[in-house]
Amino acid sequence: MSKVAVIMGSTSDLPVMQDAVDMLKEFGIAVEVDIVSAHRTPEKLFDFSKNAHKKGYSVIIAGAGGAAHLPGMVASLSPLPVIGVPVKSSNSIDGWDSVLSILQMPGGVPVATVALNGAKNAGILAAQIIGSTDAKVLAKIEAYKESLKEKVIKGAEEVRKKS
Amino acid sequence: MSKVAVIMGSTSDLPVMQDAVDMLKEFGIAVEVDIVSAHRTPEKLFDFSKNAHKKGYSVIIAGAGGAAHLPGMVASLSPLPVIGVPVKSSNSIDGWDSVLSILQMPGGVPVATVALNGAKNAGILAAQIIGSTDAKVLAKIEAYKESLKEKVIKGAEEVRKKS
Amino acid sequence: MSKVAVIMGSTSDLPVMQDAVDMLKEFGIAVEVDIVSAHRTPEKLFDFSKNAHKKGYSVIIAGAGGAAHLPGMVASLSPLPVIGVPVKSSNSIDGWDSVLSILQMPGGVPVATVALNGAKNAGILAAQIIGSTDAKVLAKIEAYKESLKEKVIKGAEEVRKKS
Amino acid sequence: MSKVAVIMGSTSDLPVMQDAVDMLKEFGIAVEVDIVSAHRTPEKLFDFSKNAHKKGYSVIIAGAGGAAHLPGMVASLSPLPVIGVPVKSSNSIDGWDSVLSILQMPGGVPVATVALNGAKNAGILAAQIIGSTDAKVLAKIEAYKESLKEKVIKGAEEVRKKS
Amino acid sequence: MSKVAVIMGSTSDLPVMQDAVDMLKEFGIAVEVDIVSAHRTPEKLFDFSKNAHKKGYSVIIAGAGGAAHLPGMVASLSPLPVIGVPVKSSNSIDGWDSVLSILQMPGGVPVATVALNGAKNAGILAAQIIGSTDAKVLAKIEAYKESLKEKVIKGAEEVRKKS
Amino acid sequence: MSKVAVIMGSTSDLPVMQDAVDMLKEFGIAVEVDIVSAHRTPEKLFDFSKNAHKKGYSVIIAGAGGAAHLPGMVASLSPLPVIGVPVKSSNSIDGWDSVLSILQMPGGVPVATVALNGAKNAGILAAQIIGSTDAKVLAKIEAYKESLKEKVIKGAEEVRKKS
Amino acid sequence: MSKVAVIMGSTSDLPVMQDAVDMLKEFGIAVEVDIVSAHRTPEKLFDFSKNAHKKGYSVIIAGAGGAAHLPGMVASLSPLPVIGVPVKSSNSIDGWDSVLSILQMPGGVPVATVALNGAKNAGILAAQIIGSTDAKVLAKIEAYKESLKEKVIKGAEEVRKKS
Amino acid sequence: MSKVAVIMGSTSDLPVMQDAVDMLKEFGIAVEVDIVSAHRTPEKLFDFSKNAHKKGYSVIIAGAGGAAHLPGMVASLSPLPVIGVPVKSSNSIDGWDSVLSILQMPGGVPVATVALNGAKNAGILAAQIIGSTDAKVLAKIEAYKESLKEKVIKGAEEVRKKS
Repeated sequence: MSKVAVIMGSTSDLPVMQDAVDMLKEFGIAVEVDIVSAHRTPEKLFDFSKNAHKKGYSVIIAGAGGAAHLPGMVASLSPLPVIGVPVKSSNSIDGWDSVLSILQMPGGVPVATVALNGAKNAGILAAQIIGSTDAKVLAKIEAYKESLKEKVIKGAEEVRKKS
Repeated sequence: MSKVAVIMGSTSDLPVMQDAVDMLKEFGIAVEVDIVSAHRTPEKLFDFSKNAHKKGYSVIIAGAGGAAHLPGMVASLSPLPVIGVPVKSSNSIDGWDSVLSILQMPGGVPVATVALNGAKNAGILAAQIIGSTDAKVLAKIEAYKESLKEKVIKGAEEVRKKS
Repeated sequence: MSKVAVIMGSTSDLPVMQDAVDMLKEFGIAVEVDIVSAHRTPEKLFDFSKNAHKKGYSVIIAGAGGAAHLPGMVASLSPLPVIGVPVKSSNSIDGWDSVLSILQMPGGVPVATVALNGAKNAGILAAQIIGSTDAKVLAKIEAYKESLKEKVIKGAEEVRKKS
Repeated sequence: MSKVAVIMGSTSDLPVMQDAVDMLKEFGIAVEVDIVSAHRTPEKLFDFSKNAHKKGYSVIIAGAGGAAHLPGMVASLSPLPVIGVPVKSSNSIDGWDSVLSILQMPGGVPVATVALNGAKNAGILAAQIIGSTDAKVLAKIEAYKESLKEKVIKGAEEVRKKS
Repeated sequence: MSKVAVIMGSTSDLPVMQDAVDMLKEFGIAVEVDIVSAHRTPEKLFDFSKNAHKKGYSVIIAGAGGAAHLPGMVASLSPLPVIGVPVKSSNSIDGWDSVLSILQMPGGVPVATVALNGAKNAGILAAQIIGSTDAKVLAKIEAYKESLKEKVIKGAEEVRKKS
Repeated sequence: MSKVAVIMGSTSDLPVMQDAVDMLKEFGIAVEVDIVSAHRTPEKLFDFSKNAHKKGYSVIIAGAGGAAHLPGMVASLSPLPVIGVPVKSSNSIDGWDSVLSILQMPGGVPVATVALNGAKNAGILAAQIIGSTDAKVLAKIEAYKESLKEKVIKGAEEVRKKS
Repeated sequence: MSKVAVIMGSTSDLPVMQDAVDMLKEFGIAVEVDIVSAHRTPEKLFDFSKNAHKKGYSVIIAGAGGAAHLPGMVASLSPLPVIGVPVKSSNSIDGWDSVLSILQMPGGVPVATVALNGAKNAGILAAQIIGSTDAKVLAKIEAYKESLKEKVIKGAEEVRKKS
Repeated sequence: MSKVAVIMGSTSDLPVMQDAVDMLKEFGIAVEVDIVSAHRTPEKLFDFSKNAHKKGYSVIIAGAGGAAHLPGMVASLSPLPVIGVPVKSSNSIDGWDSVLSILQMPGGVPVATVALNGAKNAGILAAQIIGSTDAKVLAKIEAYKESLKEKVIKGAEEVRKKS
């Protein structure tokens, strides 16, 4: 069965990254969380990334802020698809640093980047990757999309009353 | 067998998007190319996106420039993983418009965004997604990563002679 | 008689978009409000946009935040003039994403973009479009402009006393 | 019959602004062109803007570069809808100055802003404004949209052969 | 005797612009304050700007936010030196709109731009302009600069104790 | 009689800064040119700035690129009005570095900043500063503004023929 | 023995710059703090910078906000390595002004720039410079890096429990 | 004797990085050049960084473009001072990606960042670091600064003749 790793550079990233974990649990996908800092625990980064595909993970979600090197370094070391979440940290320059240092990877080493603080979407994207060969997960994604629709339709009714 | 769709908003995006096609062919993955414009052929967009997973595609790569709505609209209509390639078109504001209108998707509808003009990485990422459940493709990705290494090592030798 | 549609991507956009509704009511123009999400209710988007001109609307105002695709997608599907309001949503990168993904439309599919959170101006612009062939509405716009002047002149008096 | 004014700050803006003129002619809409500089001919700006609606114009298209004040000043003086075209001039800071000084108008004085150098879309938008109460022009816009589709479909065929 | 006009687009700019008034009073220079809105009172703008040099003003300080056209329009109509103060207003895109629409004036019509919200410096600059031909004011500026020094030197002593 | 100093950080700034010199000569104002580098000749910077007002200069124009410290450092050392010209140098980040490091001076030390590469406007602004107490120069500025108008009016005639 | 100077443009920079002082003390390195304003105390700047290497300092850390000229001017006057800390001050444009006016120094005069508000890293960098020829300090840096690792590993344990 | 390593992510960075090598040779400092790619040769990155201080290097200069992770990853693994050179590569977003992903390092792991393409300054900074404990190198830096001055003074003479 598929399993997703959700890693982040610092415990302060957890409030943002928890959305990915919650989303994956909602889809019934196994998920494991860890702190792996590219800059403070480079050996752990190496060890984790080199072995992730051997340990049964099929996707890695990595979140980091500022000069965010974690997603790109994991992508350099692992053959698995890596989803990068730019986190808007406290001394960030409005989030531009996190976004650009995750998105602008050189040719040969892709990171699937989602929106600033977009950990929820990282969880859904991981589910979609699994769903591309797992019909049960695919069906859950289709049901989830249906539920989004219903929420909007209910909201529309309320808005028409209020405005 | 897995199959990838590479679509783009305009024929002028082809010189950039061809890199994705070439990369996928190098990995031996079936690929089909089409022009689907969110703004000029919205019905085709709907039809393509609604049915892509039924036609055997497992990943969709979508490239567009300026106010690039193609990747996000495909993602809204298809349960498959969608990879977005921001294309730096002629009247773009330095590419920022393409990048932000693909990357900053709202919660619920992810697009796996790669670097500006990063179609090559979109191809590799699609292969990694397929490789996450296909051991043969995974092996090819590992071999590809090995080849990147060798190129750098040869480059290093030349640089040491020249500088 | 002319009628304006004010639509938005999410109920959270209402506090901003209400300004457009209020402005139109002030000008005595009929207005209808709805939630239409490009990403979560694409079918409703299609249906609404394809039929708006048949249902008696003469202008559509569409507000959205982040990677804001609603105004552009409506413009792709409707022959009516579409006014886009970039909304500064919570995870926006300072509003740049909303602005650029509404403004930078490709040749062939214009969106009349107003300032970030500028829903009030969207309401006035819709009235001006109607006023361009409706002398009564034109007269109201001229009166409105006169009232702006008077407010400034009163403010000037107070400032001269205070400073 | 409806008539559109296309004005610009400098003769150097003509290569960009001609697209608006051509588009309007294609739709069979009367168009008049003039140079009106907010900074060098402010009296002409006043005279033109105060009287445009009396001279039979129903829409004004105004293009300017750098600290582009022309569209906003016309909008402050005329009750007509004003479409602003940010022009990327030679000493512009990548076009950001033109875009922001046209788009970010204060509450009360809207400018319908189109993309950087987007004069073609300004012409189409003016036609759509006229078409909102003129069934013949509306039909032409619908035909134009149809023609965009066909061009994309032809392009798609070629791309499938080439790639 | 020299006299400075401090004008601004809206009463909401007064908390920022008061710094210019206070600074000029500190230098013993006569100052008059007014609200002149380029977009809401264009006739007053014309009248004020055309006559300022005849009414005894030697410098005009103009503050405005967003798509700030006031300083540039005054400069287009008056032969006097115009100092522009970009004001960070509520719906501004981080102040960039105010800064660029004041700073990036076309060749022929300069505005002496100071920092975002830099009204204090606008006051000092006006005093320096007057001081360039008025030895008494020049002496006051030299004394002011000396006082800045002393404040820093006192601050330095405190810091050495604390840190 | 009034005299203006035009200084710049490097000989490579001369093609841009020559516009200021030419403009001042056109107004019949005495001008002297020098290279003063804040970073390479700090002693010359000190000496020049401390003595400029004693040597008969009434305005200083200072141009520099990149992390442009020249205008601000001159302003810190001289009581005269200092006009700063941000120069777009070769390794500049699109000119943003020059603009921000000249414009964003702290309270107490203003620099009258003009547009990127706006040396022509720096020359005119210096003339306006002199003209604020010199009726002959003021008259020349009024004549210059009149000539701008005429050029636009001629351009308008040509455009009406061509378009 | 090595000694580091920590200087800043204003007492308001102390809350940020204290981190550099604390870090150096933690490494047992002598540190002296002073306020030196490029714009308000230029003579002190000259005197300090010209003599720093004669007074036994081996590294200078300089912090400043806005149009931050202090680090660059010190670097122009001293042969010592200068570390620049961009400080996000109150009227800064999101910190971009401080960052660019410290980072983008011209060829010949380097400033070792750290992150926005990154005074802690400035302290560590100064220690690393000293450690490059002082084995005791080098050992402390290695121990410090080890301590960073341990903190992350503890954090990882907690996160695994919580999420 | 001191020795400096100049490494870069790709052979395409050599034209920029050669300036650092040349500058160090001019100061008579030993220098070794290598290609080390964070993303393509992560093992070499680890090996190089872990051992650099044991192999006699006292400073490491690392240049990279786009999402530039090389300088930060070396800094995470080595106790030596690391100088980062942001390189403006072909698909970079105007260099902002390189600058931010090198500069905005998290607390604990500094990179001494120089200007975009500022390899020359990286070489000088490395020499200054060595010069902080090596009187001979310090003397050479002082002589170099003197030579900069002379070049400016010669340039000033030429400019005075030409302008």
